[in-house]
Amino acid sequence: MTPSRAEKINQVLSKRQSGLTVVMENVHDPHNIYAVMRTCDAVGIQDIYVLNTELPREGYFGIKSSSSANKWLTIHQFDNVQSCFSALREKYDLIYTTYLGETSKSVYEIDFTQRVALVFGNEHKGVSYEAQALSDGNFIIPQVGMIPSLNISVACAVAIYEAFRQRKQAGMYDELAKPHPDNDSIKAIWASFSAV
Amino acid sequence: MTPSRAEKINQVLSKRQSGLTVVMENVHDPHNIYAVMRTCDAVGIQDIYVLNTELPREGYFGIKSSSSANKWLTIHQFDNVQSCFSALREKYDLIYTTYLGETSKSVYEIDFTQRVALVFGNEHKGVSYEAQALSDGNFIIPQVGMIPSLNISVACAVAIYEAFRQRKQAGMYDELAKPHPDNDSIKAIWASFSAV
Repeated sequence: MTPSRAEKINQVLSKRQSGLTVVMENVHDPHNIYAVMRTCDAVGIQDIYVLNTELPREGYFGIKSSSSANKWLTIHQFDNVQSCFSALREKYDLIYTTYLGETSKSVYEIDFTQRVALVFGNEHKGVSYEAQALSDGNFIIPQVGMIPSLNISVACAVAIYEAFRQRKQAGMYDELAKPHPDNDSIKAIWASFSAV
Repeated sequence: MTPSRAEKINQVLSKRQSGLTVVMENVHDPHNIYAVMRTCDAVGIQDIYVLNTELPREGYFGIKSSSSANKWLTIHQFDNVQSCFSALREKYDLIYTTYLGETSKSVYEIDFTQRVALVFGNEHKGVSYEAQALSDGNFIIPQVGMIPSLNISVACAVAIYEAFRQRKQAGMYDELAKPHPDNDSIKAIWASFSAV
């Protein structure tokens, strides 16, 4: 590994946010999944949760380990809502689901300096009732247009960049920020990849 | 037209932002173009500029008028950078191009309460030198990941939702905000469409 490559890895790793994650529940379109992963990498999200309750595990297409976006992420896969949320509760203080309900708060009202998990649902059906019931509330991306919904990759990008903005302002991307607890193992995995 | 439809149109129109626009220069992928348009509608951008200097006009696939996103927008099409920028200068105080240069400012440093045009370039080549030379500067979406670039539809969404956030905070989406100057003609066009 070249010195500049090692420096890049250290720099990126120093900004990984252990207190921020995205959960995709039954998101089926691979383009959406990879677009979400790419944006997660861009804002420094290391851990993402892929929850797939609908397809039998053997039929699930899975996440290709060779893809360029997800090789830099730690992907936690679940086929059961409760076990996924139990795992989330260990690492995050607040879990919000996307849902266009009357009691939903705006994404701009969320305090992203806390440890937050954002759950995005299936392209057509949205987040399941079970996941909603286990969450701390719903949030929406405010919209003022004629067309009532945004693509999941766009909605996710808007939400996690708002998290980025708030965390950046709070100094949570500074070099001295608390490192990701799995720093050493992530670094070892990254170092094993060839350059992108 | 039903009363609820008329009310929806009035409500959306009351939030259209005459001082905010997106310019797409030689963006060729229709998926990207329509994704950008959809997000423009969502944040209340009415006017967008489609600048296409590369293909002969007869070969240009054009913008389908029947598409669900662009029917709610006013699309200004140009095949020449200078005439496009002359038109922009009449309506916007600041024109920024996306470019990953050393002098680029962060999107979060832009004052979106001013009248701002954001120029996005071709998926591979970026914004042309000619457009950059005619702009007031470059901006970037900050990124801290291993993968160096975001899809144009994601980058645009992050940028114009930051504009939305700032303008919302400044009261520019309130009902009493200054109406779009073309309100009446836009309303007539919208009223002619069937419900989406």
